[in-house]
Amino acid sequence: MTEVGRGLAKSLLSRRAFTTSAAAAALAPLVTANPAATIQTGTTGATMGAVRRITLYAERLADGQLGYGLEPGKATIPGPLIEMIEGDTLEIEMVNNLDVAASLHVHGVDYDVASDGTRLNDGVVEPGGRRTYIWRTHAQGRRGGGAGIEPGSAGYWHYHDHVVGTPHGTIGIRQGLYGPLVVRRKKDVKPDKTFTVVFNDMMINNRPAHQAPEFVAKVGERVEWIVITHGEFYHTFHIHGHRWADNRTGLLESLEDPSRIIDTKITGPAESFGFQVIAGERVGPGAWMYHCHVQSHSDMGMAGIFKVTDENGNVPGQPGGGHEGH
Amino acid sequence: MTEVGRGLAKSLLSRRAFTTSAAAAALAPLVTANPAATIQTGTTGATMGAVRRITLYAERLADGQLGYGLEPGKATIPGPLIEMIEGDTLEIEMVNNLDVAASLHVHGVDYDVASDGTRLNDGVVEPGGRRTYIWRTHAQGRRGGGAGIEPGSAGYWHYHDHVVGTPHGTIGIRQGLYGPLVVRRKKDVKPDKTFTVVFNDMMINNRPAHQAPEFVAKVGERVEWIVITHGEFYHTFHIHGHRWADNRTGLLESLEDPSRIIDTKITGPAESFGFQVIAGERVGPGAWMYHCHVQSHSDMGMAGIFKVTDENGNVPGQPGGGHEGH
Amino acid sequence: MTEVGRGLAKSLLSRRAFTTSAAAAALAPLVTANPAATIQTGTTGATMGAVRRITLYAERLADGQLGYGLEPGKATIPGPLIEMIEGDTLEIEMVNNLDVAASLHVHGVDYDVASDGTRLNDGVVEPGGRRTYIWRTHAQGRRGGGAGIEPGSAGYWHYHDHVVGTPHGTIGIRQGLYGPLVVRRKKDVKPDKTFTVVFNDMMINNRPAHQAPEFVAKVGERVEWIVITHGEFYHTFHIHGHRWADNRTGLLESLEDPSRIIDTKITGPAESFGFQVIAGERVGPGAWMYHCHVQSHSDMGMAGIFKVTDENGNVPGQPGGGHEGH
Ligand SMILES: [Cu+2]
Ligand SMILES: [Cu+2]
Ligand SMILES: [Cu+2]
Repeated sequence: MTEVGRGLAKSLLSRRAFTTSAAAAALAPLVTANPAATIQTGTTGATMGAVRRITLYAERLADGQLGYGLEPGKATIPGPLIEMIEGDTLEIEMVNNLDVAASLHVHGVDYDVASDGTRLNDGVVEPGGRRTYIWRTHAQGRRGGGAGIEPGSAGYWHYHDHVVGTPHGTIGIRQGLYGPLVVRRKKDVKPDKTFTVVFNDMMINNRPAHQAPEFVAKVGERVEWIVITHGEFYHTFHIHGHRWADNRTGLLESLEDPSRIIDTKITGPAESFGFQVIAGERVGPGAWMYHCHVQSHSDMGMAGIFKVTDENGNVPGQPGGGHEGH
Repeated sequence: MTEVGRGLAKSLLSRRAFTTSAAAAALAPLVTANPAATIQTGTTGATMGAVRRITLYAERLADGQLGYGLEPGKATIPGPLIEMIEGDTLEIEMVNNLDVAASLHVHGVDYDVASDGTRLNDGVVEPGGRRTYIWRTHAQGRRGGGAGIEPGSAGYWHYHDHVVGTPHGTIGIRQGLYGPLVVRRKKDVKPDKTFTVVFNDMMINNRPAHQAPEFVAKVGERVEWIVITHGEFYHTFHIHGHRWADNRTGLLESLEDPSRIIDTKITGPAESFGFQVIAGERVGPGAWMYHCHVQSHSDMGMAGIFKVTDENGNVPGQPGGGHEGH
Repeated sequence: MTEVGRGLAKSLLSRRAFTTSAAAAALAPLVTANPAATIQTGTTGATMGAVRRITLYAERLADGQLGYGLEPGKATIPGPLIEMIEGDTLEIEMVNNLDVAASLHVHGVDYDVASDGTRLNDGVVEPGGRRTYIWRTHAQGRRGGGAGIEPGSAGYWHYHDHVVGTPHGTIGIRQGLYGPLVVRRKKDVKPDKTFTVVFNDMMINNRPAHQAPEFVAKVGERVEWIVITHGEFYHTFHIHGHRWADNRTGLLESLEDPSRIIDTKITGPAESFGFQVIAGERVGPGAWMYHCHVQSHSDMGMAGIFKVTDENGNVPGQPGGGHEGH
C-alpha cells in the first residue's frame, strides 16, 4: 500500500469512531410530505454535517405488496424520499414487521460492511427484529498526496431490500421494498417539488398497468424528477415538452458544460438519475405525458401524466384529465 | 409559484403571441438533398431566428410501408432531415394522405400541447386532413432571478407518429413514420454530409436484413451521423475505425472536456444522439463497417458499410464493395 | 473535399509510412502480471511514442473454450491486458493455433483497413497461420485550419475475434476470444491494480455461474476496473460501497466536472468503460459484492466479491470469504 493509502486507512478509522459516538446522541426530526413521505436531514453548517436518526418500518401493505414507511402502518411504494446534504449522517433503525427476513441496502453513500444490508455481510433483519444501518456522506475534495479528487456523495440514489426471496432481494424489490434517496451538495438548488418514478419490471411505482401516478405542478414551479429502475428490463424514460442535461444534477453547471441535452434516457435495473425542470417552461400548461418509450411497454400501460396547470390550477382543454387518451 | 415562475409564465405568453403572428407571414424555402430530403431553416441573424413554413406529407410507400415526405409521392424512410438553428421556428403543415389517422410528435424542441401530436392532446390528423404543428427553439441562457441556466434546444432529435396503431404510434413507427431533426447552436460546426441511422426493431432505416444503406464519403470530409432508435429492442451502435465524444455534439468542446471517447454506444427506443467524424482520419480510406454490436443483431443483418474513398473515389482492395463480407 | 481534408489526407499518408518503418525496427519487452497477463508499452517520451511488437496466440483452452495468450499454451479468458500510452504503436503478430480461421479486431485505436480483423477487409488468420496487426494511438490536439479538437486515443477499450462462427465473430467471442485494452494519456494516474470484468452473455469472464473471480486489494490501494460487455444481453454493472464518475477516466477531472457520480451503469455488447477507486475509501475493509444488477442475472450467478483487506490482509467477519452469501 502507498503512503496515501496508509494515511487514508487511519483517517477512515478515526472518522468512523467519531461519527458513531456523535450519532448516538442525536435524534432527527422527521419531515413528511406527499405523495411519498420525505425525510430531510437539514445541515447544521458544521463541517461534518448533521447526524439524524429515523425509524423505517418494512411492512406488508393492504394489497399484499411490501413497502417501507416512517411509521407503523404507513408504508408506501416507493418508500419515503430521503434527502441528505453532503456531510450528513443518517442512522436508520429498520423494524421488520414482515414474516420473512428483510434488509436495507443503499446506493451511493458511505457505509461499513455492517450496513451493507446483505446476508453475505450479516446485515439482515429477522422477522420482528430491528437493526440500525448507518449512512454517511461527504463533500467532494482533493485527496492528500496529490491523489486526485474524491467525488462527493451528491447524487440521485436509492435504497432497497437485498434479501427477500433471493440473496439479491429479487422478490422484495419486485413487491415494493425500495425508495429514493437524494444527496445534495450544500449549494445545489432545491426544488419546489420532487416526483419519483420507479420502473419496476412492467410497472411504474408498482401500480397496475395504465394507472401510473399523475404528477401535478404549476407553470414555473421547479420540479425535480427522480427516476429509478428495478427488476428485469431496460426502459427508456421520456417526458413530453421538457428536457434536461445528462449530468449529475440534470442542470447545466455552466455555459460551457458539454453535457448532452436529452428528453429520453435508457436505464436498467438499479440505475437512478434525477433532474429538475421548470414546469411548462417555453411550452406552457398542459397534460404532458411521461412514459417508457419502449413501444410495447408504453402500450401496456407504462405511461402517466405530468399535469402542468396555469396559475389557477387549470389545464387548457383538459377538463377531465384522462390517462393516455384512452 | 415563485416570482421567477410568475415572470416566466408571462414571458411565455408574450413570446408565444409573437412567434405565432410572425410565423403567419413567413414562407420557407426548402432545400432537399440525398439520401433523404433535407430542410434547413437558415437563420436570419435576428434574435428570434427565422420562421419557416413547410408541408409534410404522410403517405404509403410503394412497398406498403409508411413515410413522411416534403412533396406528394416523395415520402422516404427515414423522413426528411430537418435542420434548425437555435432561435428558429418551424411551422409544419402535415397533410395526411393515409387512410388512418396519423400525427407528428417531436422530441427536444418547444411546442404547445396543441402541437404535441397525441390523441390525448387532440393533436391527430384525420385521413385526408391537414394540421399545422409549430416547433420553436431557443438558445441556452441564464434565467432571471438566479434560477440557473436554461439549456438550449440544440441536439440531435427526431420526430415520429404518435397515433397509428396504438396511442403511442407503435404501428406508425414500425412502418416508417419517423425522421431526424438536428438543432444547432449558431456557432456549431456544419458537416459536409449527414447520415441518419435508425435502428427500428431489427431493421436499419426499415430496410430488409443485410441491406442497410451504404454511406459514402471522401477521406477528410466532415461526416455527421445521427443515430435514432425505435421499437422494442436496445442496440449498441458501433462504427469501425472512427470514434467520438459522448457529449452533446460528439465533439470535444475544449481540451478539458471530460467526456468519454467511445466507438460503441448502447441506445434504446426514442433515444437519439449524433456526432461528427473526419472520414478516415488516422485510418485512411476503406470499407468501414457500422453495425449493431448485439451479436445476434449484427448476424441477422443490422450492419452496413461506411465507405471512405480516397481523393479519386476509390477504396483500396474493395473493387466490388460487398456488404459485410458475404 | 475541403482544404483541411486534403491536408489531412497527406499527413495521414506520411504518418503511416513513418510508423511502419519505425515499427519494423522495434521489439517490445513484455510485462506479464496476474490475474491476466499484461502488456505495457512504456513510453519513450518521444513525440511519436514507443513502437512495440508482441505475439498473440489464439488457442483452445483445456476446458474447450478459446483464448488469446502471450505465449503458446498460456491463453487466458479474458486475454492479456494491453496497456498503451497515447502516441505508442503496437504491432501484434497473431498466431492462430486453432483449427478454424480467427482474427483480431480492436476498438478505439487507429488502424488501416488491413488491420481491421474482418473477412470483409481480408483480415483473417487461417488455421496455423500468422498475421501482423498494427495499432496506433495519438494524443488529443487541435486540428489545423480551425477544424476543432481531435480526440485522443485514451480510453478503456478492448479487442476480440471478428470471424469465428459468423462474420461478426459471435462464436469466437462467446467462447472467450476477447480481452481488455487501456490507452492512457501521458499524465493519467496509474493504478496499483487493474481488474477486468467481462459480462459475456450470462457469464463473467466466461466462468461458470456463481464462480466469478474474487478480486483482492488492500484498503487504500488504487484499483482500476475495466468493464466490457459481449454477447446478447444488456447488463447493469454495480459494485457495493464504491462509486465513480461517469466520464472518460471514472475520475473527476476538476472540481467543476459536471459528470454524474454512479455506482451502477447500464452497458451493452461491445461497450467498455473503466474507472479507478481507492479500495475501501470511506467504507473500510470488507467483502464488497460486485454484480450485474439485473435481478435474474445476479440470482443466476453474475456476482463476485471485491475483497478489501485491512493492512494485515484480513477482512473483518469474513474468515472463509464465501461467494454471495450462499
Ligand atoms: Cu442495489
Ligand atoms: Cu417519442
Ligand atoms: Cu467489436
